[in-house]
Amino acid sequence: MIIVMKPDAPANVVDDLLARIEAKGLKPLHMPGSERVVLGALGDERVLGELELEGHPYVEAVKPILAPYKLVSRELHPHDSIVTIGDVSIGGSRFALIAGPCAVENETQLLASAKAAKAAGARILRGGAFKPRTSPYSFQGHGGEGLTLLADVGRELGMPVVTEVLESGDVDLVATHADALQVGARNMQNFSLLKAVGQVRKPVILKRGMSARIEDLLLAAEYILAEGNDQVVLCERGIRTFETATRNTLDLAAVPLLKAKSHLPVIVDPSHGTGIRALVAPMALAGAAAGADGLMIEVHFDPGAAQCDGAQSLFPHQLEALGKQLGQLLPVVGRTL
Amino acid sequence: MIIVMKPDAPANVVDDLLARIEAKGLKPLHMPGSERVVLGALGDERVLGELELEGHPYVEAVKPILAPYKLVSRELHPHDSIVTIGDVSIGGSRFALIAGPCAVENETQLLASAKAAKAAGARILRGGAFKPRTSPYSFQGHGGEGLTLLADVGRELGMPVVTEVLESGDVDLVATHADALQVGARNMQNFSLLKAVGQVRKPVILKRGMSARIEDLLLAAEYILAEGNDQVVLCERGIRTFETATRNTLDLAAVPLLKAKSHLPVIVDPSHGTGIRALVAPMALAGAAAGADGLMIEVHFDPGAAQCDGAQSLFPHQLEALGKQLGQLLPVVGRTL
Amino acid sequence: MIIVMKPDAPANVVDDLLARIEAKGLKPLHMPGSERVVLGALGDERVLGELELEGHPYVEAVKPILAPYKLVSRELHPHDSIVTIGDVSIGGSRFALIAGPCAVENETQLLASAKAAKAAGARILRGGAFKPRTSPYSFQGHGGEGLTLLADVGRELGMPVVTEVLESGDVDLVATHADALQVGARNMQNFSLLKAVGQVRKPVILKRGMSARIEDLLLAAEYILAEGNDQVVLCERGIRTFETATRNTLDLAAVPLLKAKSHLPVIVDPSHGTGIRALVAPMALAGAAAGADGLMIEVHFDPGAAQCDGAQSLFPHQLEALGKQLGQLLPVVGRTL
Amino acid sequence: MIIVMKPDAPANVVDDLLARIEAKGLKPLHMPGSERVVLGALGDERVLGELELEGHPYVEAVKPILAPYKLVSRELHPHDSIVTIGDVSIGGSRFALIAGPCAVENETQLLASAKAAKAAGARILRGGAFKPRTSPYSFQGHGGEGLTLLADVGRELGMPVVTEVLESGDVDLVATHADALQVGARNMQNFSLLKAVGQVRKPVILKRGMSARIEDLLLAAEYILAEGNDQVVLCERGIRTFETATRNTLDLAAVPLLKAKSHLPVIVDPSHGTGIRALVAPMALAGAAAGADGLMIEVHFDPGAAQCDGAQSLFPHQLEALGKQLGQLLPVVGRTL
Repeated sequence: MIIVMKPDAPANVVDDLLARIEAKGLKPLHMPGSERVVLGALGDERVLGELELEGHPYVEAVKPILAPYKLVSRELHPHDSIVTIGDVSIGGSRFALIAGPCAVENETQLLASAKAAKAAGARILRGGAFKPRTSPYSFQGHGGEGLTLLADVGRELGMPVVTEVLESGDVDLVATHADALQVGARNMQNFSLLKAVGQVRKPVILKRGMSARIEDLLLAAEYILAEGNDQVVLCERGIRTFETATRNTLDLAAVPLLKAKSHLPVIVDPSHGTGIRALVAPMALAGAAAGADGLMIEVHFDPGAAQCDGAQSLFPHQLEALGKQLGQLLPVVGRTL
Repeated sequence: MIIVMKPDAPANVVDDLLARIEAKGLKPLHMPGSERVVLGALGDERVLGELELEGHPYVEAVKPILAPYKLVSRELHPHDSIVTIGDVSIGGSRFALIAGPCAVENETQLLASAKAAKAAGARILRGGAFKPRTSPYSFQGHGGEGLTLLADVGRELGMPVVTEVLESGDVDLVATHADALQVGARNMQNFSLLKAVGQVRKPVILKRGMSARIEDLLLAAEYILAEGNDQVVLCERGIRTFETATRNTLDLAAVPLLKAKSHLPVIVDPSHGTGIRALVAPMALAGAAAGADGLMIEVHFDPGAAQCDGAQSLFPHQLEALGKQLGQLLPVVGRTL
Repeated sequence: MIIVMKPDAPANVVDDLLARIEAKGLKPLHMPGSERVVLGALGDERVLGELELEGHPYVEAVKPILAPYKLVSRELHPHDSIVTIGDVSIGGSRFALIAGPCAVENETQLLASAKAAKAAGARILRGGAFKPRTSPYSFQGHGGEGLTLLADVGRELGMPVVTEVLESGDVDLVATHADALQVGARNMQNFSLLKAVGQVRKPVILKRGMSARIEDLLLAAEYILAEGNDQVVLCERGIRTFETATRNTLDLAAVPLLKAKSHLPVIVDPSHGTGIRALVAPMALAGAAAGADGLMIEVHFDPGAAQCDGAQSLFPHQLEALGKQLGQLLPVVGRTL
Repeated sequence: MIIVMKPDAPANVVDDLLARIEAKGLKPLHMPGSERVVLGALGDERVLGELELEGHPYVEAVKPILAPYKLVSRELHPHDSIVTIGDVSIGGSRFALIAGPCAVENETQLLASAKAAKAAGARILRGGAFKPRTSPYSFQGHGGEGLTLLADVGRELGMPVVTEVLESGDVDLVATHADALQVGARNMQNFSLLKAVGQVRKPVILKRGMSARIEDLLLAAEYILAEGNDQVVLCERGIRTFETATRNTLDLAAVPLLKAKSHLPVIVDPSHGTGIRALVAPMALAGAAAGADGLMIEVHFDPGAAQCDGAQSLFPHQLEALGKQLGQLLPVVGRTL
């Protein structure tokens, strides 16, 4: 339920209302705006009747939140949210390019790849230390050691870093080293993990699951916000369909649709979304044209030698060329690189 | 099989080879280039051995066509094909905007919508006279009468027209009135219809089926080319997936992928690809950014009153705004509107 | 709209009502039952108000048909329909096994395969003369010659025959030779073909399209019934999903679901539904257990030499063993082979 | 790699070989059979050459394991595995019916539902204490309290119990109370959880993910076996497709396919697989006919009042009727209830 207060509602009346909402077993939300205060009350809406809000002298309107997700809905929060990773904002008029290797392999590889990312215009560095792999016999990442290396290289280049966390038990460790935590597609409905990342004060990049509908993704984000962390970036990275010519089917219509339904920023991962190097740049441009707030792209200084996902990693010169095209395209949709 | 002749191969030697290929029961192809002639031989490649091409003094190389589709493959035809509808070329550096109402309803509706299309920069007019509808109780289009009206309005505005043909028996009738024939998604594997449109001398816009893999689409196009009609435009219009928030899932990665595998032009239909008006413009821009040669968009002068697909039809002013954005975006990917 | 007449409604009153329904531009339906007559009125239901049926002395009840499909709905026709192919009934307590080769190749192959089918308990013979093939370079069937051969072998063995028809222009020819016409998965929404098979007086086996929802299949059947042919058998044959280990994903839940929504008989094709010989028998048994009225199975006397779909064709001894198991299983679900 | 020893190979030779395999950094496996011993060596197969097994006097054959999954593959382990939950075996000729409510709600509900399950022939009790829910605002289960209640009721009725574990941190707690741990569809690729359940000595029921291919499911099982727990039961519970008439698309062909590729037992969950009460019994019978080793079915003594998934829960009398039909059907496929 959304409760719009009148412009002249005194602070103590607002505080009193919040206390009464809480006393009824609902979750109270306080959203002060430039002109008026808006309150939220999440939970069993039937008990709201007992608050007799309709006749309240300082309440202008009471409206239900129709979407099953509340905190992430634009109904509750009509303006775009901006999420800040290190010193980089995602969600405003400046576009965020996140790039780096699939996995942190070693210092040489990471540093060279990170420099390539930076040279191409990327402002955030990505790199996997804990790798979720379909087979137990595939390279599983360097874990804690990889985290340290990633943090060191990020510091050296002045780039905040984002890396994936695979289980709730690792959240504190990863949060110590990284500027943002990534929840991967396979864990999008790992609710323990969602709750755990909801309890830290670090931004979260939440990737869409391979079989997740738009509403599932928004409800997964709702788990994080419901725990108190509203620094969430949604990431479209392709869904699983009958098409086998690409690794996944990148559903770019999800970008304008998510932005219509939610105030959270939305980025696109064309690397996992296609799985094919030659398709990454066209789909990166397409994602930017569709209105994304940023991109997450895999780049490797020597893709042929990559320990994972080499086939979808760009060569440094390809990322650089893409950066230039993005710089030209973004102003058409009201953004800059 | 592709047979690359040496630059100095005399014409009579080439003719002789073509005759020998045909005599073996294979389909011969003659593709003269600026420097050298390339021949093709389609069919059971085992009999080619009997031609003893390997030792032939004027044959430079003999290469198999690895793709299951031959005539549409870039292996056989490395340069982009250009398809001409009326006086409009699709496939070169000039982008082709095709727009118009879903169905031809009446003269007022068609003329007003067509003028809106033209004003926004569309150079080809679309409009359905024969409508394939999921339910037998839905409006099925005005048939022959609709065809005449479409042709009249196209002539009046100087726009070539494209319309769907639903069965092989109607191909001649539709070809009489339209400048290009559209084969719809539901008929993409209606092989009788594919053969029939392969036998007329009108360009064909072939829409991807809802459950068609990239290879299925290329093989469907191969049916048309194999009958002698190489004026085929491929159209990505969304596939059917588990996502229900959009009418279809527009698979834009198909655009660069199709262009990598085939020399045929590729356009995108963001109207059917999303089914939601608010998503049409972002996905149109995304399609252009992904490298499409054109767009096919539904516009209606009064979408609320449309007899079909009103929810995905743009208002005239929306198409006009989109046209402006396209004009700015296209140069970034080397094209103009 | 369904109009339930009172038990004592005289015939001339019923006739008069039907005439008035027709006069309003609706399609009248006459469904006499053992106790009372039920009438149907299809079309724009708003004009029904003008008939003043509610106060009619011989009308017991007037109910809307909620499903978008009317004639195929159980709402209109609560009892199971029985479709008769030659002398074989489909839809009652006796189970119908349809078997034969994918394609009619030659007399030896067809006769040997048909004898194997008959020996295993099949009562209807299948075989393709016109073959829809993804590639134009694959074997397309023997056409008219194949039809004649199929009819001859059917006659010789006393088995009615079913074969696919690919386009409306061929419907009369195929109907001359076959006891039932099959509309294939790729043509499930070829509405011209659906209308054409709706106009002949031969039963139709309608296969579910690869991307067809249950409702789409029922609406496709509605096209046939709306033309006057109510002898339609629905066939589940697998849908296209992300799973690549099987050719299609056989959706057996469609069987009880279709039977709940429609009065039409439902059969299962485990050959196309799996594409793998070893899975055909288990899925055939599963289909019977799920409540199917019959099965359509590919058998070939020498699958390794088959011109199409050899990998999914049973050996004769496998079909025979399956027939025995079916004979034991069917009584558990109230049927006999 | 599989190493088949000769029948007369002495034990000390076998031990020596195992030690040498381990010394090369490979994982050694010892599989004594009735006639001969088979050894396995998992890991980088290139180093195996250094063991010079080909010329070894007691080695009969050395064969690669072609599947990407090794321990779960039938190549390595040709006979069916039997998994024992409490005193109930799954995987042999006796069929295992697992039933119970979706969630443990309270003692009355659980006891009544469990008695209904037992009366219908179920030998294992299911019930959720930790519930994975798409929305953070849905009932999340009673947690530890629910576990205790489930264990109590299971003891009272003499039924072993199975319940879902949602995160690695809960594995020990759940293993204390339950006879088997369930890993749900959403967690099928939660690799931390897979590793954790691989380290306890309790059987695991592993449900197929909504977008998991057969190979993904087998590789997920491989994670568990690679940690040392070979008591794994695979569960087909439906995949996500474009069909919206059912909650999921139950892919019954997965049953014979999984059993062909793996030695692990396979069960079917027709409740989640369809989401519709009326489809549960037909699909349960179909699963049994397809060769499943068991079924997992939701039953509730009052489905209308269920806190979750009431629409797919059977009434007690429906489960009882199903039990009777299963008792008749199973002998046809060589099993008993």
